[in-house]
Amino acid sequence: MANNAAALDSIFYALADPTRRAVIQRLGRGSATVGELAEPFAMALPSFMKHVGILERTGLIRSRKRGRIRTCTLEQKNLAAAERWFAEQRSMWASRYQNLDSLLESLNGEKRDS
Amino acid sequence: MANNAAALDSIFYALADPTRRAVIQRLGRGSATVGELAEPFAMALPSFMKHVGILERTGLIRSRKRGRIRTCTLEQKNLAAAERWFAEQRSMWASRYQNLDSLLESLNGEKRDS
Repeated sequence: MANNAAALDSIFYALADPTRRAVIQRLGRGSATVGELAEPFAMALPSFMKHVGILERTGLIRSRKRGRIRTCTLEQKNLAAAERWFAEQRSMWASRYQNLDSLLESLNGEKRDS
Repeated sequence: MANNAAALDSIFYALADPTRRAVIQRLGRGSATVGELAEPFAMALPSFMKHVGILERTGLIRSRKRGRIRTCTLEQKNLAAAERWFAEQRSMWASRYQNLDSLLESLNGEKRDS
């Protein structure tokens, strides 16, 4: 899902919050239960669950419930899609500067020739 | 400004919109006037200016007015700060997988030794 504009909208929106970025950062070290994830935050569980819900709907994490315990796992694929957007922008600047370089070189060449 | 949490919040929020991402993409090819930037969008100018304002307050672009013409330029530095956040996450996973690799290797070693 992560290549279209709507998916990027929701991924960047999900990342625009320090709690949600911290959850992603924590899950980068391995899966964790909702209880473990919530622990560092001075936040009521229902508020915390809203953040988990946003991350899950966006496809940045997935979760599975066993009995009363819900365990969350990072979905690196969708995070990678957002990172790719930056790489695409950079490759555009790079080709622009390469064009400028070529132009300057050819101008210098003309100067030498004249 | 772009290294703290509040700055990342506002950068990711700014990127969570297709019009604003398209503006950044366009400015990656070089500076442009507000008129040139607005042209591809079926949007009233005041609405478009709100997007430009968000990008400018977030520090993703800067603009300068000469007479009646406002020209916008990309601020790559703040875009790079957001991209760095992804790289940091990736380096964390990488070290995690390296640790798993070392563990597996040492387990294999123990098996060979026994």
